[in-house]
Amino acid sequence: MKRAIVLLSGGIDSATCAVIARNEGFELYAMTFRYGQRHAVEIEAAKRIAENIGVIEHHIVDVDLAAFGGSALTADIAVPKARSAAAMESGIPSTYVPARNTIFLSFGLGWAEVTESRDIFIGVNAVDYSGYPDCRPEYIEAYQKMAALATKAGVEGMPVSIHTPLISLTKAQIIQTGARLGLDYGLTHSCYDPSPEGAACGCCDSCLLRKKGFSEAGVLDPTRYRGNRKE
Amino acid sequence: MKRAIVLLSGGIDSATCAVIARNEGFELYAMTFRYGQRHAVEIEAAKRIAENIGVIEHHIVDVDLAAFGGSALTADIAVPKARSAAAMESGIPSTYVPARNTIFLSFGLGWAEVTESRDIFIGVNAVDYSGYPDCRPEYIEAYQKMAALATKAGVEGMPVSIHTPLISLTKAQIIQTGARLGLDYGLTHSCYDPSPEGAACGCCDSCLLRKKGFSEAGVLDPTRYRGNRKE
Repeated sequence: MKRAIVLLSGGIDSATCAVIARNEGFELYAMTFRYGQRHAVEIEAAKRIAENIGVIEHHIVDVDLAAFGGSALTADIAVPKARSAAAMESGIPSTYVPARNTIFLSFGLGWAEVTESRDIFIGVNAVDYSGYPDCRPEYIEAYQKMAALATKAGVEGMPVSIHTPLISLTKAQIIQTGARLGLDYGLTHSCYDPSPEGAACGCCDSCLLRKKGFSEAGVLDPTRYRGNRKE
Repeated sequence: MKRAIVLLSGGIDSATCAVIARNEGFELYAMTFRYGQRHAVEIEAAKRIAENIGVIEHHIVDVDLAAFGGSALTADIAVPKARSAAAMESGIPSTYVPARNTIFLSFGLGWAEVTESRDIFIGVNAVDYSGYPDCRPEYIEAYQKMAALATKAGVEGMPVSIHTPLISLTKAQIIQTGARLGLDYGLTHSCYDPSPEGAACGCCDSCLLRKKGFSEAGVLDPTRYRGNRKE
């Protein structure tokens, strides 16, 4: 059976990407990165998803991105709240983490070489994350070219393919795809600023995109938002 | 003053690369990776070198490469000893670590973005490490193209340059260059299999290349080899 590395964050996109890979007949090797983000609840979500979808192996890799500073996701900078769609679309958001996808893909590349996987799945999306340079198709294409030259497998004529099945889908289309493949979105987590109990704030960029996605997809949003109950 | 990230392993090549960058007028931000290698003595060498050459900042980054297995440098596979030059030149050596330079450069790229450095120096060498796919000029070129697309700086028209001043130098030429720039090679460490006290074995690939390099360079080898004294 063919093997694939899937980068699994615990959010909607990577979980959907993983079930797409499984549906294409791959045995899954899931890789999750713990990088000093404030929402460790995401790691727990990744564990639940990996178990639920039946991966062969799940590695949690500690990555010291916080040492760089420079991002709302790793440093102590306020997470932007209730921004307009226009504000979200302009420029590079403060939640951008320098070189994040490059670092994550590079760990995936190393594990691909060891597990003899010829395929890496990453749930990047150029629609909702248009401000992130490392979510664009031209970036992924350049990464793949570099990877072919970086590795033993590439030198031996078996380069890795980087799959980005979500890259041009809207959040609604992503959710419809996952729902059709039987993914339980109640296992996933999106919020940049959850309560200590793991409830989503409902108003950060990530929650707003999530709500809009479920609404437009016509799929019930199973998320527990803070406003939904007393906390 | 212009800033550069220098990847500093504690060995001859990266130390020479760092003094070359300094000599070109860069303020140095040194990055060393602790990746479960058996020779932690190399990290101590990197610290001594960083202090000695006067870097602005030195980050030791923990990288969990051992999770991949698959290499003599991270897993429990015997280090090849006393191999012939022909054996060293044939194929990809067992000391090759999957995606290592790709992972290291990616951390360097993230730090470059945060420190607003436009330059990264890496001491890769295509002569003595011809078996490593990620030491070839075509790999570095592809990495640089990818990096230009991966980052905020790249998108804004200020892509990072990856400098590989040693790429086509022999070990002897590297040592002559560093010696001319005043580098104290007594601070550096090469051995794959040092004694607990940090003495070099004198017979692993890395020691053999080091000895040959000093001999051909006509520079005194300041290394403490195990055979040199009773241990």
